[in-house]
Amino acid sequence: MFSKYNVIVVGAGHAGCEAAAAAANLGSKVLLITMNMGTIAQMSCNPAMGGVAKGQIIREIDALGGYSGIIADKTTIQFRMLNLSKGPAMWSPRSQNDRMRFAEEWRLQLESLSNIDFWQDTVKEIIVDQGRAKGVITSLGIRIEADAVVLTNGTFLNGIIHIGEKKFGGGRTGEKAATGLTEQLISIGFESGRMKTGTPPRVDGRTLDYTKMEEQWGDEKRGRFSYQSIDLPQEQRCCWITYTNTNVHDTLKEGFEKSPMFTGRIKGLGPRYCPSIEDKINRFAERDRHQIFVEPEGWRTHEIYVNGFSTSLPEDVQFKALRQIPGFENAKMFRPGYAIEYDYFPPMQLDLTLETKKVKNLFFAGQINGTTGYEEAASQGLIAGINAHQRINDLHELILKRSESYIGVLIDDLVTKGTEEPYRMFTSRAEHRLLLRQDNADIRLTPLAHQLGLASEEALDKVKTKISKSDEIVEYLRKTSVEASKMNPILEKLSSSPLTQNIKMFNVLTRPQVNIWNLAEANSSLKDLLADFSEEIIEQAEIKVKYDSYFDKEIEIVNKMKKMEDKEINPHFDYNQLISLSKEAREKLIKIKPRTLGQASRISGVSPADVSVLMVHMSN
Amino acid sequence: MFSKYNVIVVGAGHAGCEAAAAAANLGSKVLLITMNMGTIAQMSCNPAMGGVAKGQIIREIDALGGYSGIIADKTTIQFRMLNLSKGPAMWSPRSQNDRMRFAEEWRLQLESLSNIDFWQDTVKEIIVDQGRAKGVITSLGIRIEADAVVLTNGTFLNGIIHIGEKKFGGGRTGEKAATGLTEQLISIGFESGRMKTGTPPRVDGRTLDYTKMEEQWGDEKRGRFSYQSIDLPQEQRCCWITYTNTNVHDTLKEGFEKSPMFTGRIKGLGPRYCPSIEDKINRFAERDRHQIFVEPEGWRTHEIYVNGFSTSLPEDVQFKALRQIPGFENAKMFRPGYAIEYDYFPPMQLDLTLETKKVKNLFFAGQINGTTGYEEAASQGLIAGINAHQRINDLHELILKRSESYIGVLIDDLVTKGTEEPYRMFTSRAEHRLLLRQDNADIRLTPLAHQLGLASEEALDKVKTKISKSDEIVEYLRKTSVEASKMNPILEKLSSSPLTQNIKMFNVLTRPQVNIWNLAEANSSLKDLLADFSEEIIEQAEIKVKYDSYFDKEIEIVNKMKKMEDKEINPHFDYNQLISLSKEAREKLIKIKPRTLGQASRISGVSPADVSVLMVHMSN
Repeated sequence: MFSKYNVIVVGAGHAGCEAAAAAANLGSKVLLITMNMGTIAQMSCNPAMGGVAKGQIIREIDALGGYSGIIADKTTIQFRMLNLSKGPAMWSPRSQNDRMRFAEEWRLQLESLSNIDFWQDTVKEIIVDQGRAKGVITSLGIRIEADAVVLTNGTFLNGIIHIGEKKFGGGRTGEKAATGLTEQLISIGFESGRMKTGTPPRVDGRTLDYTKMEEQWGDEKRGRFSYQSIDLPQEQRCCWITYTNTNVHDTLKEGFEKSPMFTGRIKGLGPRYCPSIEDKINRFAERDRHQIFVEPEGWRTHEIYVNGFSTSLPEDVQFKALRQIPGFENAKMFRPGYAIEYDYFPPMQLDLTLETKKVKNLFFAGQINGTTGYEEAASQGLIAGINAHQRINDLHELILKRSESYIGVLIDDLVTKGTEEPYRMFTSRAEHRLLLRQDNADIRLTPLAHQLGLASEEALDKVKTKISKSDEIVEYLRKTSVEASKMNPILEKLSSSPLTQNIKMFNVLTRPQVNIWNLAEANSSLKDLLADFSEEIIEQAEIKVKYDSYFDKEIEIVNKMKKMEDKEINPHFDYNQLISLSKEAREKLIKIKPRTLGQASRISGVSPADVSVLMVHMSN
Repeated sequence: MFSKYNVIVVGAGHAGCEAAAAAANLGSKVLLITMNMGTIAQMSCNPAMGGVAKGQIIREIDALGGYSGIIADKTTIQFRMLNLSKGPAMWSPRSQNDRMRFAEEWRLQLESLSNIDFWQDTVKEIIVDQGRAKGVITSLGIRIEADAVVLTNGTFLNGIIHIGEKKFGGGRTGEKAATGLTEQLISIGFESGRMKTGTPPRVDGRTLDYTKMEEQWGDEKRGRFSYQSIDLPQEQRCCWITYTNTNVHDTLKEGFEKSPMFTGRIKGLGPRYCPSIEDKINRFAERDRHQIFVEPEGWRTHEIYVNGFSTSLPEDVQFKALRQIPGFENAKMFRPGYAIEYDYFPPMQLDLTLETKKVKNLFFAGQINGTTGYEEAASQGLIAGINAHQRINDLHELILKRSESYIGVLIDDLVTKGTEEPYRMFTSRAEHRLLLRQDNADIRLTPLAHQLGLASEEALDKVKTKISKSDEIVEYLRKTSVEASKMNPILEKLSSSPLTQNIKMFNVLTRPQVNIWNLAEANSSLKDLLADFSEEIIEQAEIKVKYDSYFDKEIEIVNKMKKMEDKEINPHFDYNQLISLSKEAREKLIKIKPRTLGQASRISGVSPADVSVLMVHMSN
């Protein structure tokens, strides 16, 4: 019934969609298997994409030829660039999205790729032959062969939903769980664990009193995720902010004795940085309020996502507590919040390509690897999809460096350190975050994507132009002076000290108070020059000037570490021969099989002394 | 957590959506409970609304203030008026719809009604107190009180999906079944039965060769369901027609030994007039081909619904057979066809208001009553929603007559005769079908809706105008003659015999070959008159003229039967006192409790002699 595929992708959430698209765009014949063709690319939790560090990931996905940014852009009901008051490394794009339209656009996008076929079914088993994945067997008993398999099962593997003392099987509320697959993977030697995540109640926007909340509008001039030129919906919807209070907290506490979290019924660990509201009031007992973001679920729906109020307390407690939040006095719920426990596979069982070590040509991406977040999932899907294609065609693998992308940081962290709680990306996880900015993801990654065949000539040219044109502006600023007499009135307004003589504009622009348009005001030739360039190019030039010295220092650090990062270790290296290694280091090194000395040095339990032993041996 | 509602509607398919909307619009506070807020108003089977007799029902729903017509109109990707070559009683509007948008529009429509609240949960039990429904208990254990409850569970009650020899629980593929409710209803004395229905495989439109099929375009000038003025999408998509052949049939037969239909694994009866393809080749062995309608599932998706190929044979047999259909040689499937068995409650347990006889204030609508079809379900939902509201407010009930609507025929048939297989509407079921036309549903029903409060003053005025203006045209045609000299050249072209003298236009128009525009060509004063009227009004006038005598005869028949139809029987009437009744008639009369002598006469087992006995008794 099915001829053999190159790549089978199991699951059609954020990870599965990106994986299927990437492998297909590279030329693989792909089969995407989903339990329900009607629920492809659901935003299972909040109707938003991006945010701090996550927005950077979306731009990286976009630069690499993925679609998450494009889909998000097409369905954005509100866009904000977060952290604009901080340095550019912290600028983080974030969108609110229309939940239904997001799913629809992803599905249509996938349908538009001729290399993707679809099949509605549930995968029960991976066909493994001589340590290599050869296809899948579905719940209909169908055997479908493939050269590689990518698993992106999200929260569906043995999913159990908890609301107070009630629990029932399900992959999401109203949807079935997937059973059988975990058990098979364990039988062939995989370790699995349990994690949990949760979601807040959804309420009826018609029952809220917005006058008691703070309005939160999107940026007046809205940004975008994608570096491509896509028509964006311009009109934006308002969100709101409100706060819990001690009454809310006291009410929630009444439900603690029935909480599946606190009574031990939920075994899996939840996302530390996306805690449930009961977790927050438990862990931060000193705080008398927590912020609640009131987010519309789409352009026209009244359904509201109560961001910050994730909970698995009994639904009546949820309700009673909600109603004590200002603006929620008459709130009605559409759906209660719930927690879900599911199986994941500790990611130290993976290679940096996201291929499993135990079974060749089998890749894992998304929550199955212990991560949380659409962006984390999508980026893993993209990398798994790419590497599945590369692997079966004997092409070079794609391993992104920690110094070139958040995606590199994410995967290196997962594979090198593992995770025991749902892993979420933060800027603080990236030691070279100054270089990993949302403004330069295209510069960092599009050339790589182009080499692979995932970025068009046009996309690459666009990046080259961005670099050369912004350099042109920087050069001009370096060479050209501004007249003190013209600049000083402007500087005075900006509370910046006056110039005592004409100086190069570059030097004036390094002042934090001054932006490039202030200079253009004082120098009409600059103004004329800028008129020829896009905002993106001008912004890039300005960032280069203002932060040049910081970036240079960071690049210096990267280069120093390069020696270690580039020093490859043979994956078949026999660590037992190095008797000077500590016992723990040896065990971990054998388990994780680091690709480079740099990766080895990040393994917990591998000390600097152990790294030295390795180094000495390798330089012999 | 919930205050008491007036009406709780369980299920949000076609029946549930109409029920909730109707009760809410009448003023009831309504809670709509659905298993999944994300799957409201799914078109579970074909992406189309209307068709023969069914299109008339949609227009009746619209005339009564329901929304099915409006939602269909807003999401129509192709519209056709079927049977235009026949008389106007057979004209039947039918639309192909965008599946995703249809669901989205319904959901947004419901959200726009301030009296409807929503709750995502599964109802496990009806609260019954002293023979009266008082609310529901959900799977979360929540007790929600209400004055009335409307059950619209579709195929979800103990749903079991069959594909070949495999079967699994589910309300639709990928969705959970609902358990517990049937058992409770049985425990309080309801009878239940099993029915089955099925759906065809969906295929990838990119893999079809349309050059081997016949194109089927929509009407150039597209019609609409709703009498309201709604902006319609104008662009239409093409559908296609192809045929099975003996190879297809032979291949399907190979799977018969694994067919859940033929091996007895499926106990419930399926829809006779919407048979599976295996049923068709089994029952009509002499036919060497069956028609297949190739229907796109939306504006932009490639998914194709293979109308006419419903099947529960093993998926590999489905696939192998499909590929032998011209144009399907390389077809790939998205989802296999399947059969589903579910619980229904034989509808003789209902009153004509759709209230159950056993439990007051409990209403059933849709497939739970043993019907099939979106239109049948939606219309029952509308009537149940209206009567739930009327009942709890001690207002007069709405029982539509067989002579005024298909909906009346549908409900009278169900309640009076019951059904042992999924009941589908046909024009042949309506003895007065000449009067039950798609062009006059507003004239028939909007005044009733206005009385109830479901049609606006504006809607009623529109109907009044339609009547008076079309009468005005008819009057004009009656009074005004056309000149033979001007008319004859036109008649010649139409192959209609020439006039020998000037005669009234009315008389010319009764000729089948002549339409009103032919007359206007010959008579400029008529042309000027028509310029002032809408097409709808002109069409109405033309129908009146052409079919006036038929309608008059039909109305005469209706009036003759009126005496019996209007003769009410006290629902507490003691049939045991009428010793002359046959035993069977007495039993049936006691069970069904007919409202009128007319209804009594239609009960199977009640003979004309029995009716006479009743008549004699009642005239005493």
